Amino acid sequence: MSRVSYEEFLAQRAEFVGQEESRALGSDVVLNEDEQKVNEYLMTLKRAELEEGFKSPIKFAPSRHFFTVLDQIKNSPLFQLIQKMPKGGILHAHDTAIGSMETVIKATYQKFLWQNGEFGRPNPPHFKFSKTQPETLEGVEWRSVADVRKELGNEGFDQNLRELLSLFVPDPEVVYPCINHAWGRFFSMFISLEPIVTFRPVWEEYFTNTLKELHADNVTYLEFRGVLPPVYDLEGKVYSPEEIVQIYYDLSEKFKQQHPDFVGVKFIYAPIRAADDATVDGYLREAENLHKKFPTFVAGFDLVGQEDLGRPLTDFNERLLKMSPTIQFFLHAGETNWNGLSTDENLIDAVLLGAKRIGHGFAAVKHPRVLEELKKRNICIELNPVSNQVLKLVDDCRNHVGAIYFSDNYPVVVSSDDPAFWCASPLSHDFYVAFLGLASARQDLRLLKKLALNSIEYSGMTKAEKVEAKHKWNIAWNHFIDQTLQTISQ
Amino acid sequence: MSRVSYEEFLAQRAEFVGQEESRALGSDVVLNEDEQKVNEYLMTLKRAELEEGFKSPIKFAPSRHFFTVLDQIKNSPLFQLIQKMPKGGILHAHDTAIGSMETVIKATYQKFLWQNGEFGRPNPPHFKFSKTQPETLEGVEWRSVADVRKELGNEGFDQNLRELLSLFVPDPEVVYPCINHAWGRFFSMFISLEPIVTFRPVWEEYFTNTLKELHADNVTYLEFRGVLPPVYDLEGKVYSPEEIVQIYYDLSEKFKQQHPDFVGVKFIYAPIRAADDATVDGYLREAENLHKKFPTFVAGFDLVGQEDLGRPLTDFNERLLKMSPTIQFFLHAGETNWNGLSTDENLIDAVLLGAKRIGHGFAAVKHPRVLEELKKRNICIELNPVSNQVLKLVDDCRNHVGAIYFSDNYPVVVSSDDPAFWCASPLSHDFYVAFLGLASARQDLRLLKKLALNSIEYSGMTKAEKVEAKHKWNIAWNHFIDQTLQTISQ
Repeated sequence: MSRVSYEEFLAQRAEFVGQEESRALGSDVVLNEDEQKVNEYLMTLKRAELEEGFKSPIKFAPSRHFFTVLDQIKNSPLFQLIQKMPKGGILHAHDTAIGSMETVIKATYQKFLWQNGEFGRPNPPHFKFSKTQPETLEGVEWRSVADVRKELGNEGFDQNLRELLSLFVPDPEVVYPCINHAWGRFFSMFISLEPIVTFRPVWEEYFTNTLKELHADNVTYLEFRGVLPPVYDLEGKVYSPEEIVQIYYDLSEKFKQQHPDFVGVKFIYAPIRAADDATVDGYLREAENLHKKFPTFVAGFDLVGQEDLGRPLTDFNERLLKMSPTIQFFLHAGETNWNGLSTDENLIDAVLLGAKRIGHGFAAVKHPRVLEELKKRNICIELNPVSNQVLKLVDDCRNHVGAIYFSDNYPVVVSSDDPAFWCASPLSHDFYVAFLGLASARQDLRLLKKLALNSIEYSGMTKAEKVEAKHKWNIAWNHFIDQTLQTISQ
Repeated sequence: MSRVSYEEFLAQRAEFVGQEESRALGSDVVLNEDEQKVNEYLMTLKRAELEEGFKSPIKFAPSRHFFTVLDQIKNSPLFQLIQKMPKGGILHAHDTAIGSMETVIKATYQKFLWQNGEFGRPNPPHFKFSKTQPETLEGVEWRSVADVRKELGNEGFDQNLRELLSLFVPDPEVVYPCINHAWGRFFSMFISLEPIVTFRPVWEEYFTNTLKELHADNVTYLEFRGVLPPVYDLEGKVYSPEEIVQIYYDLSEKFKQQHPDFVGVKFIYAPIRAADDATVDGYLREAENLHKKFPTFVAGFDLVGQEDLGRPLTDFNERLLKMSPTIQFFLHAGETNWNGLSTDENLIDAVLLGAKRIGHGFAAVKHPRVLEELKKRNICIELNPVSNQVLKLVDDCRNHVGAIYFSDNYPVVVSSDDPAFWCASPLSHDFYVAFLGLASARQDLRLLKKLALNSIEYSGMTKAEKVEAKHKWNIAWNHFIDQTLQTISQ
């Protein structure tokens, strides 16, 4: 036995590093000369944050709780560059948690809004739009929001509502000691929000504003999950799921016409998994109906809600297998820290059910056969790093499993889940955390470009739609490269 | 396109689960009838904690900071059973941080101990054994510890010292916000401790007590890293590294004679990595010397200290390659959250240097080529889950990378690093956290048996020593199975 020479060692090491680099996500992307210049600039910004973090980890934004570094990120030149970058589409996000809550807060200035209960109590107040005062609820009278506003002042009212509709707190580690605390609050936010946002005029405004905010964040495609809650109007009409999807469709088409660089929208019907069999049967019938009525706009089916507390896929496999084979599955699975329990084993069901994409897949790294099948079947994992931290799956984002997927070229996209609930931009914050905190220090613009391209590749778009989407994205990308070159050469 | 039938799906799922189970660490272990009964009991205890945790994650000990669940673990019947289990050897632990600090505290009742500085100040006091009062240090006089004891009372003095020699605090998240805080305190503990423990009589007592505590924790082999600090006596003699190793050797032999079921001890010379070239050259000469003088007792070489702040292996590769090829490397590498920086890329050097084992390897999961080589070259990863949590690599132990190694049969052992510094038993706490928090809910007694066997297999023992070690371990294991059967059938 003898050791190799140092020269031989250095050659082996260079080869080894090269092999790892060539396996990393994005390594197949070839950058042209202009892109290489932008890449140099990008990497200068990335390295600056890494070097500071390496010396003093507490300053490294992706290692800290998102709520404590929001201002720091806003001022990061790397973040600002990523904001400007055309990022493709969002493939994992939920109906009423993508667009900013400011739209909702503004909506509460409208007439005919009522409030039941007070702010700051353990049970948050209920809201409802109605021409006349609604019937007393559990002994409590409804008050006109206009009256409440007079009492609290507009600023006071808005601030109260803002706090109600956000997970943000300055001391998240104290307020949310475990996943159930964060999810409890998270779920109650949807409950408070729903009767405001499901008022048809607000519903339409909220959705259109969501698309505007995506567009401003340089996101030009949206494939979102929705529960299709009962949208209503002042005349007492409650809209059917089909009518709600029609509203989504019409508003999307209108937005596309107004914004020719915008690619479009698709919808994944995703009702709540914590439901009894009869309810689920109803959901599945609805899914079939929507699939027939909107064969391209409705991309597929999923089930949502806290996976650990909801029902596992094993409860639904038999039913899901009976669905029309043309209905695609985009299934939440493995959004959990558990290992060998029903929640992480949802991953096995998702794979065998033929899921086209898997939401989160946080636990998949503990399932070697699942990992193999992700590659073999080309099942895309929808990563949502900020969501996973805020909802208590991971503390330091450098430990996020996305790092593993990035290191070995798994089919993945980066998405944002419910960005409005944690004061994040539609996609830029997740891209920033992924690029700086999850990716290797060696991964560069090629990773970001690959993530944008993957969001088209793994979307539910048809082949023709993908061609058009890629064309539009290319134009935007080249424009971004040009603009950035101009900025950095100034 | 059509979906499979439910029957076909169930068959596929069963096969899939079976494939994953057969890849998990320990799946090749065959349990006899008695072991199967013990396994049933073990799994009842494991499932009880998992079920409670699944309902209420905050109650799940491995998901919480170790310091906040010490009492809970002590009362866990699963932990108590694991304590009784013959766990084989400890392959990753550091000289003066394995045995309980109570030995050190007792030693301060000895004559001739002096103290410089006071408890409770930002700079902790210094200690020294000396026949006469040592020379004034930076203007501060040395006081006899006997006098300080009179002032503070024995209880007060002991408690102060106990706090000085432990990372334990009731609010670790507040006191140690990041890795550098924990490591700073950790390093200062070694500094306070050293001049007490390196007094030859204390040195000998501490080491012998360490072996006693191992034995009591049903650990019968120790392969530990040591920096060989300057051991001294009252006559002014400072012992050479060679003399210190001789002391270790003699005490180990004596302990073996007194405890025939104890397998033995080996030493890995592991000086501090944050050193200049000349110092490192001296270390390497010492390593060669010790290797010649103690060809079997000194198992190999390593470098220690906080990896992020120390020098990377790239600084030392050329020198290390010149060392006698019979000196084995057991290298700390990848004890970090970083990705693509010098610290995690130490893993590449460790692999290419031909390391027999790698300490921690926390970052290896982000290096697909390293992962492949671990299996191909059969390089064992020494996992230290409690250490990694306390020293701020991971928050919730369910996210510990060991889960990934366990899921796909990587060569690993579970060890404890510096258990005395965080009030852990020599090995049982790490086995408990690994079995309950890292392993799949499906992994059972076969995993624990495999971990014990791996600690023999991947040790630096000779073939003949391994045969003897396995023989002794088998006897102890069968006794444990018998005893457990008797207890559970009562």
